[in-house]
Amino acid sequence: MTVRVGVIGVGVMGADHARKLARVISGSDLVAVTDFNSEVAGAVATELGARVQPDGQALIADADVDAVVIATRDDTHADLVRAALRAGKPVMCEKPLAPTAAECRELVAAQRELAPPVDLVTVGFMRRFDPPYVALRERVRDGALGAPMMVHGISRNVSSAPGGDSAASITNSAIHELDIMPWLLDSPIVEVSYQHGRSSEHSGARQDPQFYLLRTASGVLVTVELFLNARYGYETRCEVVMETGTAALALPAHIVTDAESRRAVDYPVDWIPRYSDAYRIELQEWVDSVVAGRPSALATAEDGLRAALVADALIESMKSGGRWVEVAD
Amino acid sequence: MTVRVGVIGVGVMGADHARKLARVISGSDLVAVTDFNSEVAGAVATELGARVQPDGQALIADADVDAVVIATRDDTHADLVRAALRAGKPVMCEKPLAPTAAECRELVAAQRELAPPVDLVTVGFMRRFDPPYVALRERVRDGALGAPMMVHGISRNVSSAPGGDSAASITNSAIHELDIMPWLLDSPIVEVSYQHGRSSEHSGARQDPQFYLLRTASGVLVTVELFLNARYGYETRCEVVMETGTAALALPAHIVTDAESRRAVDYPVDWIPRYSDAYRIELQEWVDSVVAGRPSALATAEDGLRAALVADALIESMKSGGRWVEVAD
Amino acid sequence: MTVRVGVIGVGVMGADHARKLARVISGSDLVAVTDFNSEVAGAVATELGARVQPDGQALIADADVDAVVIATRDDTHADLVRAALRAGKPVMCEKPLAPTAAECRELVAAQRELAPPVDLVTVGFMRRFDPPYVALRERVRDGALGAPMMVHGISRNVSSAPGGDSAASITNSAIHELDIMPWLLDSPIVEVSYQHGRSSEHSGARQDPQFYLLRTASGVLVTVELFLNARYGYETRCEVVMETGTAALALPAHIVTDAESRRAVDYPVDWIPRYSDAYRIELQEWVDSVVAGRPSALATAEDGLRAALVADALIESMKSGGRWVEVAD
Amino acid sequence: MTVRVGVIGVGVMGADHARKLARVISGSDLVAVTDFNSEVAGAVATELGARVQPDGQALIADADVDAVVIATRDDTHADLVRAALRAGKPVMCEKPLAPTAAECRELVAAQRELAPPVDLVTVGFMRRFDPPYVALRERVRDGALGAPMMVHGISRNVSSAPGGDSAASITNSAIHELDIMPWLLDSPIVEVSYQHGRSSEHSGARQDPQFYLLRTASGVLVTVELFLNARYGYETRCEVVMETGTAALALPAHIVTDAESRRAVDYPVDWIPRYSDAYRIELQEWVDSVVAGRPSALATAEDGLRAALVADALIESMKSGGRWVEVAD
Repeated sequence: MTVRVGVIGVGVMGADHARKLARVISGSDLVAVTDFNSEVAGAVATELGARVQPDGQALIADADVDAVVIATRDDTHADLVRAALRAGKPVMCEKPLAPTAAECRELVAAQRELAPPVDLVTVGFMRRFDPPYVALRERVRDGALGAPMMVHGISRNVSSAPGGDSAASITNSAIHELDIMPWLLDSPIVEVSYQHGRSSEHSGARQDPQFYLLRTASGVLVTVELFLNARYGYETRCEVVMETGTAALALPAHIVTDAESRRAVDYPVDWIPRYSDAYRIELQEWVDSVVAGRPSALATAEDGLRAALVADALIESMKSGGRWVEVAD
Repeated sequence: MTVRVGVIGVGVMGADHARKLARVISGSDLVAVTDFNSEVAGAVATELGARVQPDGQALIADADVDAVVIATRDDTHADLVRAALRAGKPVMCEKPLAPTAAECRELVAAQRELAPPVDLVTVGFMRRFDPPYVALRERVRDGALGAPMMVHGISRNVSSAPGGDSAASITNSAIHELDIMPWLLDSPIVEVSYQHGRSSEHSGARQDPQFYLLRTASGVLVTVELFLNARYGYETRCEVVMETGTAALALPAHIVTDAESRRAVDYPVDWIPRYSDAYRIELQEWVDSVVAGRPSALATAEDGLRAALVADALIESMKSGGRWVEVAD
Repeated sequence: MTVRVGVIGVGVMGADHARKLARVISGSDLVAVTDFNSEVAGAVATELGARVQPDGQALIADADVDAVVIATRDDTHADLVRAALRAGKPVMCEKPLAPTAAECRELVAAQRELAPPVDLVTVGFMRRFDPPYVALRERVRDGALGAPMMVHGISRNVSSAPGGDSAASITNSAIHELDIMPWLLDSPIVEVSYQHGRSSEHSGARQDPQFYLLRTASGVLVTVELFLNARYGYETRCEVVMETGTAALALPAHIVTDAESRRAVDYPVDWIPRYSDAYRIELQEWVDSVVAGRPSALATAEDGLRAALVADALIESMKSGGRWVEVAD
Repeated sequence: MTVRVGVIGVGVMGADHARKLARVISGSDLVAVTDFNSEVAGAVATELGARVQPDGQALIADADVDAVVIATRDDTHADLVRAALRAGKPVMCEKPLAPTAAECRELVAAQRELAPPVDLVTVGFMRRFDPPYVALRERVRDGALGAPMMVHGISRNVSSAPGGDSAASITNSAIHELDIMPWLLDSPIVEVSYQHGRSSEHSGARQDPQFYLLRTASGVLVTVELFLNARYGYETRCEVVMETGTAALALPAHIVTDAESRRAVDYPVDWIPRYSDAYRIELQEWVDSVVAGRPSALATAEDGLRAALVADALIESMKSGGRWVEVAD
């Protein structure tokens, strides 16, 4: 009852997945990896006792591979997901499912044509498995503080990869917020507005920080700050304002240090330590669902499409000077 | 060198001012009080050893009163300030200077006509004297974290007084935010947008919470949540996002309690304990300035006018469905 | 390369281990369970797809069991560990290794007689794998804050099980502190003093809270409060005072709630959620070490003996009115 | 109704008192200062509009001085207090009342001989007026969490003045803890034990940190860490462990900063900012009591004696290797 997994793309994110699948996920066996950079692929394969496949298509075709993880560049996702669908193999694709809503829509359609119909595609929106987010959602759902009215989300990174533009901030980074807010509130985003102020001198041509207003079908006003060059550390905040109180993600910290005239807790430099538990729990749930042949609790292809549609609406709002834009169905 | 002060309006706020002026402000002597409710006036006068005047005009005219504090209903401020100007007496008027920008403009003009010109009018925007806000402003000004790009402010109250409407939330409560943000950033607000989501079932006809986007002349995007029926406690938050880090007001707390499965700190039920130090420091500065015959560090009539102009623009944005509205000069 | 594990004792702790071994530990297969209460054993076995053995001896003798977890009552540990040694099977025994140092010493001796010599016995001092404790130890070891001089530890539980006495508080509960402090400071405890004040009215005949002074070979003074009936929640604190600063465990929390005039984080009601990660990481390391046939990073039988010797010294100090007592070798 | 105050000793502490009395205490007038260093005295006098007296005796004899503050070196306190008693003038003496219990006892006796009997002497144990300590005491007194059983106090300074020895740490610094604990618990300390571990390499010949066990008449076990060369900042901690929960001083902070991979709050470098409110409130209460001719809420000469007796017992315990020593009456 072991799932033999292959990982396509073993850069920072994919190598982390590969290590977890090889070492700390029950019921999985890492059998193959591949990477655009064959040296990197070889090193990871050697470290973890897996074989190297020349490319993603070959890995998907490998008869010893039962299920596939995609952690390559965003613009390669659609082709690889399509290949996995053709091969009839479960696939966990890192977010975004594809950079545009149009491509996401095609993938959703391709999956719907499978006979018999089955959900092979899942999307790596790992925040859904983050214990603090899960606890926050339970607090919202239990109703003890009344209905939500506003949510304030903040996503900050140390620095952005070179080359991206203001739209890429949305499709590649803010996409997490666009997925998690409807999940948290149990209501889709129906309308969005893009705002911004002065940009950081460290942010190049990109508008950064950015600020979004999102409205859910249930009438909740969601605000999101995305700041990719915040410099001080990697941080996610989220506060839900309800009728008799609020609930918010706590600042994760293992230790507190008193030194140099300060009491301080450390920030991680990137998302991997912050979401390490979330990735592990997500992968375990994915492997468990493959073993059991049941739908998983991961984000579906449809979820990936919905996030992409919200991203498209935000980009349209950006281009139109910030007006409210409806999200397409 | 003692200033003999009279307080007009000794409800919750005015009585607090009267007690501080009588007991803990150096150089002040509380000599007279008055109130719409003569029983209340009598009780405060007896408690603090002051005399009762029949009304504000009589108190201002009292030859033993050197300086006047106004803490009456918003719609009475303008007449009383005008009377103090005519009497040539320094006056500290609780915010707002007047409920409309038009009235504020008249008061500014009236003061400018004094010969010789002198700043008799100050406005009780006490946050400017709150030690946490002062420390925050110093952190912004020292430049160590780079220039500010965004500010997030949140003002929450336990419950709103009955009868107000959505516009009153702005002119009476949000006015503090509209004054403090330009003070914090050293740049006036030039453009505003009013937003809102679902309102609390505890908020009556009022849109509540409300959410504002403010843009300063320096390009900073300021966001403000105002929630008058937040229920859980009275709280002010403010975070300034700068180029290499952020600074925010800390949660004020004297003690931490572990009980009933929780670690907790208590919220105050209203603004008086939260801003007690600010009020004391503000009144001391005001009395010192009167004794010394020098301009004070309090908000001026012009500051009161500016905040009212921003409030007017927000109300116009509210009526127009949230579009960005320029603030009048 | 899968380790087939049997769990002896599937009460709260053992059932948690069994679930982790069956579901989230890579490389382990839960094959058998047993319990003093056969109904409980049957339920856990059914839930997790394992078989039931009539008792611990039978489970250890089961040819399909490669390795054994002991989570039974303290006074049964020694016999079961001895049986595992005779069977030549790796065993993870929940703390304490045995209730008295004398029994621990026998087990250490029994293991030393194995030919060829091998460390089969490990002790479940899971704090060694708790990420906050691991981070704290790293902060101590990196030397950036200078050498440690004092440590303050606090262990609080909601309520104690009925029937224990003051000595049982030490051997059953404080034993965690007696193991973790030398691990944290890399120096054994050589001298101890037992103190106490008023006891809680909820603590029965037990002295509770208790307070210990421990001195390491390196001269560090360690203070420990143990309070089993603290009522408010389950909590572990630890602060290391070094020459230029201090480091302490942070309060673990997923979410923060503003409600009912308080900002609060929730405490767990017992140790299982607090140390859930530690138990998982500990079991994974144990299984990995069994698969690889290498020594594990878990506490050894010798570590179990050392903690028992410190406990014995504390009990002697208790009986002598609190004087300093040397720890036996 | 203004008290004309003279301040003897205007170093860091005395100058702070003088400034408060001149500027922010209602009902006080600073009329005279003196200092061992006449240049310092002259500068403070000029800054605050007071006259300089050649020495403490002259200042006390000054007919224009109604009441006296003593903020000189510890070993000069007794003579100055005695002079104030002879002059029949209220005096607030900085802690300690005198360095030895014997001298304190003489001062208490001298005051008792006044005819008619009157409490002229108060001691500057300002923690009694610190709002966090006051809130903590209220939480203990309201009984909601049950009776106290243990208290943990920690006092840390950045660095000690040169020249002191281990006993001076107690009489000059720990004395605050020895006064505040009985005040907090409403029960005198009857028995003490002195402990220590390794000393900091920054602490010279002094044992530092030190650790005390104190027992109150009511049976509460109080633990105190005193660390004068903690380096990282000035900090006071106190937690009271009660039957259903605990209450502790919160970390005072105005702002929180996210920068350089850390979330941090700043520590003050010494006690003056930490206890600024306490000093102001204490001085206001003292001035109010002098104006009203009523006993004040400040620590009395008897309180000063009691703290000195506890200090003496701690020094005896130190010399005897840490045994429990009873506090003399």
